[in-house]
Amino acid sequence: MPYAGTCVVAAVLVATEPDTFVSRRVEAVEVDLGGIPGDRHHGLTRPAGSREPMYPRGTPIRNRRQLSAVSVEECAAIADGLGLDAVLPEWLGANLLIKGLPELTRLPAGARLLFPSGAGLVCEGENRPCRHPGEVLAALYPLYPEREALPVRFVQVARGRRGIVLSVERPGRIAQGDRVRIWLPR
Amino acid sequence: MPYAGTCVVAAVLVATEPDTFVSRRVEAVEVDLGGIPGDRHHGLTRPAGSREPMYPRGTPIRNRRQLSAVSVEECAAIADGLGLDAVLPEWLGANLLIKGLPELTRLPAGARLLFPSGAGLVCEGENRPCRHPGEVLAALYPLYPEREALPVRFVQVARGRRGIVLSVERPGRIAQGDRVRIWLPR
Repeated sequence: MPYAGTCVVAAVLVATEPDTFVSRRVEAVEVDLGGIPGDRHHGLTRPAGSREPMYPRGTPIRNRRQLSAVSVEECAAIADGLGLDAVLPEWLGANLLIKGLPELTRLPAGARLLFPSGAGLVCEGENRPCRHPGEVLAALYPLYPEREALPVRFVQVARGRRGIVLSVERPGRIAQGDRVRIWLPR
Repeated sequence: MPYAGTCVVAAVLVATEPDTFVSRRVEAVEVDLGGIPGDRHHGLTRPAGSREPMYPRGTPIRNRRQLSAVSVEECAAIADGLGLDAVLPEWLGANLLIKGLPELTRLPAGARLLFPSGAGLVCEGENRPCRHPGEVLAALYPLYPEREALPVRFVQVARGRRGIVLSVERPGRIAQGDRVRIWLPR
């Protein structure tokens, strides 16, 4: 059986403010084939950026980064590695906080997350860390020693723990508290 | 560098006949975000089928099986395994015949095929063999011994050599003779 087990949606978050990627908690979202309507990453296409050096910057490409997910366990490990009390999914701009899948970041591309509503997401791969969340942390922890080094340290510590990006395969509702079935490819 | 090398488009094929999945050669196609316009697998969505037992049959899901590709080398290995002179990409309903990437089927999900026009395809995973191409072979090789066993033997022999399915990330032209760059994830 290709089921790898189940985990739980500990939080659902959306990034709807024009000026920041930081997300905020909501009870539930209704995803369509572009992602979460109203979220800054919603869309069937998006402009190619620095993560897609194989395409000219700004070219419309299919949006495979519709949602991002992080795990409770990996957020705790990042906080530990940085010597911080907590790293919240909001500060990473995540849309889903998952509990019970400690190595979420290692989920292979093509794995599915299946929700009780019937909604299905496809893992599009690891979300490689950039400096921006470290800049948020630096603003939030003004007394952190060597605070100006936080963006670079975040990238180092978050590598392999930054979660995954996902696209919608089947629309539907995703709510806090949902049990999620994980379906591995092959 | 995430480039794994280059290979060549040995043939471009389309399946445009309503009654058969068998494809025919064309000089070039212009792919859009649904695949090859006019091809039977074109579409942003498609109904869930037997390959997606996690969804109710017939539910619209995002189409991750827009194009299929096979390699010259793997087609030869399938023919060898079946004791046939040749297994042509047409009979497998393939859209692309690739030369110079002998283990095409092992390409990981998330790998990109990049074409001179700027078009980009994403590997969505292995195309697991079904019985239909074996039925085509049985019709084409009437003198094959134990001909009625060909569909089952095809599935056995083609496993791991049946090529991959792909979706379009960036629209553009794909032509016979194109050099293809392979970009691996991570």
